[in-house]
Amino acid sequence: MNYCSHCGSDQLEFKVPAGDNRPRYVCGSCQRIHYSNPKIVAGCLPVWEDKVLLAKRSIEPRKGYWNVPSGYMENGETVEEGALREVREEAKARVEITGIHSIYSIPHINQVYMHFLGQLEGPDAFGVGEESLEVRLFTEAEIPWEDIAFTSSVFSLQRYFADRKRGHHELHLGQLDYPVRATETDD
Amino acid sequence: MNYCSHCGSDQLEFKVPAGDNRPRYVCGSCQRIHYSNPKIVAGCLPVWEDKVLLAKRSIEPRKGYWNVPSGYMENGETVEEGALREVREEAKARVEITGIHSIYSIPHINQVYMHFLGQLEGPDAFGVGEESLEVRLFTEAEIPWEDIAFTSSVFSLQRYFADRKRGHHELHLGQLDYPVRATETDD
Repeated sequence: MNYCSHCGSDQLEFKVPAGDNRPRYVCGSCQRIHYSNPKIVAGCLPVWEDKVLLAKRSIEPRKGYWNVPSGYMENGETVEEGALREVREEAKARVEITGIHSIYSIPHINQVYMHFLGQLEGPDAFGVGEESLEVRLFTEAEIPWEDIAFTSSVFSLQRYFADRKRGHHELHLGQLDYPVRATETDD
Repeated sequence: MNYCSHCGSDQLEFKVPAGDNRPRYVCGSCQRIHYSNPKIVAGCLPVWEDKVLLAKRSIEPRKGYWNVPSGYMENGETVEEGALREVREEAKARVEITGIHSIYSIPHINQVYMHFLGQLEGPDAFGVGEESLEVRLFTEAEIPWEDIAFTSSVFSLQRYFADRKRGHHELHLGQLDYPVRATETDD
């Protein structure tokens, strides 16, 4: 941030505003305080029988790596709508959400992943979306663990298959505490 | 947004960028695309025996109304850390998080509420925070339903007491689809 988006001044200061307890960009000209907050990455893991649907990314970061279909939640939608939109855009998948699966915070890049589980409408109810190179179903044994794009997907996939073995699906809360991949993002 | 925060130009256009599917502010000078995404409001409902802890707001919007302690999640923290910070700031409450209780989207104002449940450390383990006029424990019969600040708190409180009667707490997903209160916000 170089200029105040409200008045155009370059007199920005990064300081703790009066009555606040953390530094923000404050405009020295119009006094506007500019807040920055974490973003939600909404996604859905489509399931068909003993398989899950992953999408291979056609864009950076992590181009060529596999991912649970997900992306930044947009204004004007619910979290569930965001997850359904992403799974449609990235994997052209038609799913019905069956539950929420994981909430995974990544504090150092200001992201919160929220992954749902979705019942795929049929074994062919998907395709290759614009941001994907390939989309396919994987059994647990087929998951390309070394080629998963983001730790959030590893977190969700490991817990999905563990839940499946136990015969009980629950919500998993987790976090990544340290910078593992500088490119961890999904926009 | 009146000026590009990157280059200071006033040549902002609200249009669909190439390769995108929804309008954004795009700078006609430096071509920077300015994204805007929903915010997380993190909170925690502290519980002591058959009572829950609410805080009466000392600030607008909804000054003088009761609320589940909550506020905007900040950069650099997990959702749980944000919830604990808010309950400490608003109600000086010492709690241990026992689970996540509700996720409540409000699409028309681009917010997602995430409320946890917290075990209060003791019957006096709270106080009046800076943004509160009063903080106190309520049994279900004592809840001032007409004086609750936000629909997200009504949603969480109703479900908390229903879960309690059933003897089983679960995660509740919900949404507010229409503008009920123009002031619905928690910053």
